[in-house]
Amino acid sequence: MMEKDLTEIGKDARLAARQLLLFSNEKKDQFLETLALSLWSEREKILEANSADVLKAREKMFSEALIDRLLLTEKRLQGMMADIRQLIELPDPVGKVLEEKTLSNGIRAKRQRVPLGVLAVIYEARPNVTVDITALALKSGNAVLLRGGKETRLTNLTLVEVIHQVLVKFELPTTAVQFIDDPDRRYVNKLVKMDNYVDLLIPRGGNRLQEFCKQEATMPVMTGGIGICHLFVDASADLVRVVDVVENAKVQRPSVCNALDTLLVHQNVANTILPMLYERLKRYPVEMKLDEYSAAVLGIQPELGLVAAVEGDYDQEWLALILGIKVVEDVDEAIHHIWQHSTFHSDGILSETKENINKFVRSVDSAAVYVNASTRFTDGAQLGLGGEVAVSTQKLHARGPVGLEALTSYKWILEGDYTVRE
Amino acid sequence: MMEKDLTEIGKDARLAARQLLLFSNEKKDQFLETLALSLWSEREKILEANSADVLKAREKMFSEALIDRLLLTEKRLQGMMADIRQLIELPDPVGKVLEEKTLSNGIRAKRQRVPLGVLAVIYEARPNVTVDITALALKSGNAVLLRGGKETRLTNLTLVEVIHQVLVKFELPTTAVQFIDDPDRRYVNKLVKMDNYVDLLIPRGGNRLQEFCKQEATMPVMTGGIGICHLFVDASADLVRVVDVVENAKVQRPSVCNALDTLLVHQNVANTILPMLYERLKRYPVEMKLDEYSAAVLGIQPELGLVAAVEGDYDQEWLALILGIKVVEDVDEAIHHIWQHSTFHSDGILSETKENINKFVRSVDSAAVYVNASTRFTDGAQLGLGGEVAVSTQKLHARGPVGLEALTSYKWILEGDYTVRE
Repeated sequence: MMEKDLTEIGKDARLAARQLLLFSNEKKDQFLETLALSLWSEREKILEANSADVLKAREKMFSEALIDRLLLTEKRLQGMMADIRQLIELPDPVGKVLEEKTLSNGIRAKRQRVPLGVLAVIYEARPNVTVDITALALKSGNAVLLRGGKETRLTNLTLVEVIHQVLVKFELPTTAVQFIDDPDRRYVNKLVKMDNYVDLLIPRGGNRLQEFCKQEATMPVMTGGIGICHLFVDASADLVRVVDVVENAKVQRPSVCNALDTLLVHQNVANTILPMLYERLKRYPVEMKLDEYSAAVLGIQPELGLVAAVEGDYDQEWLALILGIKVVEDVDEAIHHIWQHSTFHSDGILSETKENINKFVRSVDSAAVYVNASTRFTDGAQLGLGGEVAVSTQKLHARGPVGLEALTSYKWILEGDYTVRE
Repeated sequence: MMEKDLTEIGKDARLAARQLLLFSNEKKDQFLETLALSLWSEREKILEANSADVLKAREKMFSEALIDRLLLTEKRLQGMMADIRQLIELPDPVGKVLEEKTLSNGIRAKRQRVPLGVLAVIYEARPNVTVDITALALKSGNAVLLRGGKETRLTNLTLVEVIHQVLVKFELPTTAVQFIDDPDRRYVNKLVKMDNYVDLLIPRGGNRLQEFCKQEATMPVMTGGIGICHLFVDASADLVRVVDVVENAKVQRPSVCNALDTLLVHQNVANTILPMLYERLKRYPVEMKLDEYSAAVLGIQPELGLVAAVEGDYDQEWLALILGIKVVEDVDEAIHHIWQHSTFHSDGILSETKENINKFVRSVDSAAVYVNASTRFTDGAQLGLGGEVAVSTQKLHARGPVGLEALTSYKWILEGDYTVRE
């Protein structure tokens, strides 16, 4: 399927990354603007390829939800262009001096931001990801290997063709953005071993892909994007407003990683808040998985969406209109539950008690910790990062939305006057 | 050999890390001062255990150089105490706010430094490492698993006993610092798979250990500590002072990772500088591995330490009084040689030509890039980081000396007023 050997692709990417070290901030933004314009001028070709992907998906009887994720329209292309232009507005992180000092021997030492080098991203479905990642990678001076899903293969190949045209226009190597055409999944095993050529591997996908990369990859991997998210309703919370927040966190877009999965309720307010919540959530309807205490309050009535929680329900990322409910004794039990069950993506407290808020914020060590807000804000655009290539839930390098800055590293630059060490 | 199962050790470390989230800056420094004092008051016990280790090493006919690395003395204990007190002087990175902003919806968002959680360090020989890592880990709020070498087993066990006494005194769990007693190397295979309990694995050792960890570990690994280091002598360099710098970089401590391995010489000055260098280096003597050009200048005379470089000589970290020499056409060839052969630890240019310096600094993407200085400054103490647990040569999270700050991550804290996403 592929014309080039994967090792050659890796070598070319490494070389391209080195050429990108001289890619100036000004040129980067010109490049991005030209890319945005080219997406529009080539829209016919792009949408045609996308129609072929969609047709294939329909033949395979994919769900309408999945087809909707694949689908490109003129409006969605305009959305992609707008995202690129947002990125143009952001400062280039490369070259920024993070720290500067004169050592006692006279050496001027500074830490300066540099690109990571070569990124490899494994992703599925949505074709806007191809353009998002390319734009973020190039603005941060990185070469990128794109290993997209087969469902959008033709769209991706066409998008990369357009990207290559723009790279050529700017006298940049087309190997700065390489698409790994791998509909039979034959190259992933090898890709994850190419630590000589790939500085960071980003698997965007489910648990299986992430586990595979953790087990098999020999280069640094940025895992994340899986959120078992919690809100704890403390006894002092404003219960009327809690209902709005829980509704928003659960219902506004249930299919995403920062949607609410488990609600923890302080026992002192369980009798009041649970019926209020049920009244609100039954509109959608949201199925509520109840622990013993909450079942005693609301009653188990499966036909009304009130079911008993079973083993493992608190370890589910629902991605659907389902909500786990558990009544806890106090903020300490809430924290312990989160320690046991969270994926450390987005977890929050709803409370008016400063002491409990402080304890929660300090003890819950998730990528994003919320106080009196919906969990739905863990998102590069929401946090002003100009999009994201992933949402990291591991501890190293970057946590939460991975934007421009997280795609850079730093180096030490030490300038002396023929200085030697005593 | 071990009383506890490794999984139990991991679980306990995770729990201890969570307790350390509430370890205040003040308490940390009091802890460190008490630790320094305890090392001194328990010196008899520590030095006795060390004598037993040294005796065993002598029985096994270890080299004097290795025995010197194992050896503790009262003076060396005082050095360890001084290192701890330097660390006390440094600010605690935990809790520092890196960024703070108000989103358009009113949410206050900030990124705040937090400990990584649980570190696991695999290391050999020098017993001061046990104390260094413990001090750095605890000041940055991390629990740590220490898997030291068998050569210093008894010393390490005694040091950890002293550390535990101090932990108990401060009402901290002794599981915050656990020694993995593994003289038969039976636990490393399992340790590297414990991604549930270990946030960062730091292998301090040679190529084989690092490769093993890259291949097998399922958690983030910080590789480094292997330096094939270069200096490029440009045509415009002050040649008299170049000799001092090269001598220092090669000779001052040849056994360490930031010592010089390969000297690249601009062809226009090869005839002048090479004889000057030879005159200086023959005092030690340094063996010079010559490429064809430099062989033509100096002549191959093995009895005088002038030998022909062979395949692979430019891919050697010498750790000895040996220096590879290669004459290059210009700064571009020097950069290309470094791209091919460096481990991206410490590489430098000696030059008076601004254009070449800029090109070199921008293109050579090593952890530390030097201008007119010896490579010997890539070191946590030299850079004012209060020691180091490793010298990273990978791109993610931290590069160069890994000090306090590099042992932290950050989390996002988002405070709203029952804020929901539109």
